[in-house]
Amino acid sequence: MTTTQTHPQVQQWTNLAQQLRVDSIRCTTAAGSGHPTSSMSAADLMAVLMISYLHYDFDKPKNPNNDHLIFSKGHASPLLYSMFKAAGAISDEELMTLRKFGSRLEGHPTPILPWVDVATGSLGQGLPIGVGIALSGKYLDKLPYHIWVLLGDSEMAEGSQWEAFDHASHYKLDNLVGILDCNRLGQRGETELGWNTEAYAARARAFGWNAIVIDGHNYDEVNKAYAQATQHNGSPTLIVAKTIKGKGVSFLENVNGWHGKALSKEQEAKAMDELHPSVRSMTFPVQKPADGQPAPLPAKKPLELPQYKLNEEAATRKAYGDALKALGAANPEVVGLDGEVSNSTYAEEFAKAYPDRYFEQYIAEQQLIAAAVGLSVRGKIPFASTFAAFLTRAYDFIRMAAISRANIRLCGSHAGVSIGEDGPSQMALEDLSMMRAVYGSTVLYPCDPNQTAQLMAEMAQHEGIVYMRTTREKTPTLYGPDEKFEVGGSKVIHQSPDDRVTVVAAGITVHEALKAYEQLKSQRVLIRVIDAYSVKPMDDETLFAAAQETGNKIVVVEDHWSEGGLGDAVLEVFTQRDGPLPQVVKLAVQSMPGSGTPAELMEEAGISAHHIVQAVRALI
Amino acid sequence: MTTTQTHPQVQQWTNLAQQLRVDSIRCTTAAGSGHPTSSMSAADLMAVLMISYLHYDFDKPKNPNNDHLIFSKGHASPLLYSMFKAAGAISDEELMTLRKFGSRLEGHPTPILPWVDVATGSLGQGLPIGVGIALSGKYLDKLPYHIWVLLGDSEMAEGSQWEAFDHASHYKLDNLVGILDCNRLGQRGETELGWNTEAYAARARAFGWNAIVIDGHNYDEVNKAYAQATQHNGSPTLIVAKTIKGKGVSFLENVNGWHGKALSKEQEAKAMDELHPSVRSMTFPVQKPADGQPAPLPAKKPLELPQYKLNEEAATRKAYGDALKALGAANPEVVGLDGEVSNSTYAEEFAKAYPDRYFEQYIAEQQLIAAAVGLSVRGKIPFASTFAAFLTRAYDFIRMAAISRANIRLCGSHAGVSIGEDGPSQMALEDLSMMRAVYGSTVLYPCDPNQTAQLMAEMAQHEGIVYMRTTREKTPTLYGPDEKFEVGGSKVIHQSPDDRVTVVAAGITVHEALKAYEQLKSQRVLIRVIDAYSVKPMDDETLFAAAQETGNKIVVVEDHWSEGGLGDAVLEVFTQRDGPLPQVVKLAVQSMPGSGTPAELMEEAGISAHHIVQAVRALI
Repeated sequence: MTTTQTHPQVQQWTNLAQQLRVDSIRCTTAAGSGHPTSSMSAADLMAVLMISYLHYDFDKPKNPNNDHLIFSKGHASPLLYSMFKAAGAISDEELMTLRKFGSRLEGHPTPILPWVDVATGSLGQGLPIGVGIALSGKYLDKLPYHIWVLLGDSEMAEGSQWEAFDHASHYKLDNLVGILDCNRLGQRGETELGWNTEAYAARARAFGWNAIVIDGHNYDEVNKAYAQATQHNGSPTLIVAKTIKGKGVSFLENVNGWHGKALSKEQEAKAMDELHPSVRSMTFPVQKPADGQPAPLPAKKPLELPQYKLNEEAATRKAYGDALKALGAANPEVVGLDGEVSNSTYAEEFAKAYPDRYFEQYIAEQQLIAAAVGLSVRGKIPFASTFAAFLTRAYDFIRMAAISRANIRLCGSHAGVSIGEDGPSQMALEDLSMMRAVYGSTVLYPCDPNQTAQLMAEMAQHEGIVYMRTTREKTPTLYGPDEKFEVGGSKVIHQSPDDRVTVVAAGITVHEALKAYEQLKSQRVLIRVIDAYSVKPMDDETLFAAAQETGNKIVVVEDHWSEGGLGDAVLEVFTQRDGPLPQVVKLAVQSMPGSGTPAELMEEAGISAHHIVQAVRALI
Repeated sequence: MTTTQTHPQVQQWTNLAQQLRVDSIRCTTAAGSGHPTSSMSAADLMAVLMISYLHYDFDKPKNPNNDHLIFSKGHASPLLYSMFKAAGAISDEELMTLRKFGSRLEGHPTPILPWVDVATGSLGQGLPIGVGIALSGKYLDKLPYHIWVLLGDSEMAEGSQWEAFDHASHYKLDNLVGILDCNRLGQRGETELGWNTEAYAARARAFGWNAIVIDGHNYDEVNKAYAQATQHNGSPTLIVAKTIKGKGVSFLENVNGWHGKALSKEQEAKAMDELHPSVRSMTFPVQKPADGQPAPLPAKKPLELPQYKLNEEAATRKAYGDALKALGAANPEVVGLDGEVSNSTYAEEFAKAYPDRYFEQYIAEQQLIAAAVGLSVRGKIPFASTFAAFLTRAYDFIRMAAISRANIRLCGSHAGVSIGEDGPSQMALEDLSMMRAVYGSTVLYPCDPNQTAQLMAEMAQHEGIVYMRTTREKTPTLYGPDEKFEVGGSKVIHQSPDDRVTVVAAGITVHEALKAYEQLKSQRVLIRVIDAYSVKPMDDETLFAAAQETGNKIVVVEDHWSEGGLGDAVLEVFTQRDGPLPQVVKLAVQSMPGSGTPAELMEEAGISAHHIVQAVRALI
């Protein structure tokens, strides 16, 4: 038998936990909304963590040795912000601005606060992102920081969690600790597994994790669990803590109907009576991390992009792989990720050259993006690739990555009907639309390998969510290796004073537009051909000039549904200036494709050279 | 000790398995592409299933008693099509059209074939959809059919699989059997777990499943596993079958680099020598299901939609719940689903009234959509709801649902910055774009409760992917309960011969447009106000007339990013007619919102009445 002794820090844990509860209630009541009860269940867990296990320099949030604390259950933001106050990082006055217009303390945490790594609030994202940070800690930085992820029990239903469980054990991420605040009550009643903490632990263990089941309000158990988690080697740890929603206030404890609800002023007063002494503003010291430097990196080298000869046939997806390898040679911060299709996206070229900074994400696209976001938190330059169609699987992660102000580079291969025989499940026909509608995104769609390589160099330096769409088929090299391409640029491939229509194309359709140019030229009709490789931002000046000089007649042709893609991007440009819009004919995929050769499918879709010729002739 | 006796059907199983292998090779070699080796690993599993366990009337694919067979590993389509040939459903001649333009036999299965329930090829979707079908079988149809899902091992990394595992055990779906063809080799090398079949079984068991580990080429083990699966009660079964990729042909067996690769003619001949006799076209009888009728349903009743008084304040999300309940009363085929936010989406009204046909999907949006698709396979009328922002989590499932020609109704609540304090993680600002770019989709965005109710009645009758966007905030009722609204319609709320600008709005911005109208009117400027509640398809005639009658000046205002939403939908309409486009000013969200009141956030986003007034005044 072991003797339970009172831990010397129990009083401090208790004081902090009570202050966190008090503040979680006060700030939400002041806001008139928010999630006090979801904060109260985890207050003991966070109090012990903050005082005894977290290593974090709140004065230097960029200290590379800091632990990472992610509130995957982002709705418990009142607790997080109360911790920031308790650590002396924010004032009580600022805490009371929660959820108010202009406050840094948003309803759910975002990195406009320097101590927040990533935005949360879409559930099931904190752990997969934690995997990305942990990969960096263990394999790249080689620093002993821990990644603590506070999880809600409702969010354990998200498949993305199990992608994270799977990957974390595969990569033996013993620097990652999940803290499951199992308070039984979700937004609308009991969760699927209720207080069946053993069921969560069994699942975690089956996925290769160390799992510890505890009472989340028993300091001794909480303390021992953290100690065990930090000492455990070879696999990540999940602490499954049975907790009580609203813990600490009798009329809130384990009561359904209190999710996402602030207390009234009267209820607040009643709660404060129970949490006496009611308002305290103690500051609790948080341990600073030990000094340490990330593993030294080889020196950066000048970038030597691959070069392709004019007219040489090469797929842009191949150029992606070639250029990624070149970027890897030049910059040791470049990291590669792929969703088990690296021999199709050609990320394998990087993987083979730099296996130490390539992380296979298997067929788990949510984890793929989340890992990139986590690596971005650590200042890496991640490039993540899969078939463009399968990036739809991770749209919520991409959307949230924008709110996280993450810097990630994504490549989607096998775009459009031009992939041919594999059929519609493999064809990205909505990716341009999807990626354009991401805040602050950049969308690139090269048509030739030299252009791809140049744009890859741009991507590596560009902030935000940068997306490149590549093509399965080999296409002729149109540009010499010394031509320059930039975000926001375009190339006018053909122009003359006699151009009667402007044809705007990108990627595979540039080649169709060039065939159409030749056919029309032989019929003595000249057209301007613009390669709009930068879909967002788009080169507005070139388009304005072309419209003006070609009678305000534009044909846009794209291997994509007609909604939200290149055609809409062109129209967007014209709505941003005064005056009427030009006449725009959109050629895009309008019916559900099947299998066939690329040429057959492009013809059927109405985006081949032949259709461009028809559209131009109809306009003039 | 048990004595192993030769099962009387071993010879038949062997014959069929060999024919399936032969045909999988022949059709892919004829196509010049495809996945023969991924087919060969599962040939024995499918041979035993088809001869001894599957109950399916190939002449009557709509027979409600048929089992359902889903190839979640859709790339094994050569095996599936070879089974169709072996069952006598298609000819050898048709089999040889695999992957050719115009053939029904696409690279990955789609329901243009009458024996295919849903499109697969985006991995990790078959099992979650199978859960939807199984829910129908067990709880609605109450018929003994089985759902057999052939799974690949690579796809077990997809989180969506674990959403399915979780839900299938929660709902005790003992009519669902997963058959995991664990052939170790993925597209680019070994899978994460390789041949660790016990690891898969342990995970399945931790998620509450019956799991059986077998050698997938040992007929006795395969047979017993199916027998056990069909006799097992109370939970679903996963058969984890260790198999060999390329099984049956020595130079293909367990060799990396043979994924997604057809044999040459010479290789085919060599393979045929090993699979002697090489070409057979035997037909194998498949057991027909026993007769049975789906559980009787109460009679349909006339629809009595909820009614709201003019000017009464009510949120469209509330009207969604009210109308869903009304639809449930009228039509027993209506089924409700929600992602654990039914008290926010108001799906709870249906859940409370019709608990027997409401299926809680917890916080698992991929499973939410997949269950709807599965219910659609069984002819139900599923309505699935969650926050619109979180539908991004399921975009791949929605995209694939369109390829599946599924009829599903989706509702996304809490659209736009107008949700207020919760902040950007909860705000759908890309959902209109996302849903417009789904093939054949319908996108509705009501602004008032009577309109919501009327459109819900339309949704119930409408085919394809139908999406409704609802608003968190209460807004005044603008329309009487007898006004009619239809897919493709719009309402001109204000018009006069003196209108100088057309303002197009939808949902929450209609109310801003009406305020702007009053302000401008007081300044003696008349505008036309159009409520474009049908975002796709859009009422082109009304827009054309309005443009013509208001000097070709249009302001579009939406609570959405500027890409792909209402503004682009309006422009889309004008690109579909000849002639230059009108001048269109798009007011949309341009910067990352934070927390605040709805009014503050709409003002900051530039989509309030005040901004509409400014935009109109700048145009005239």
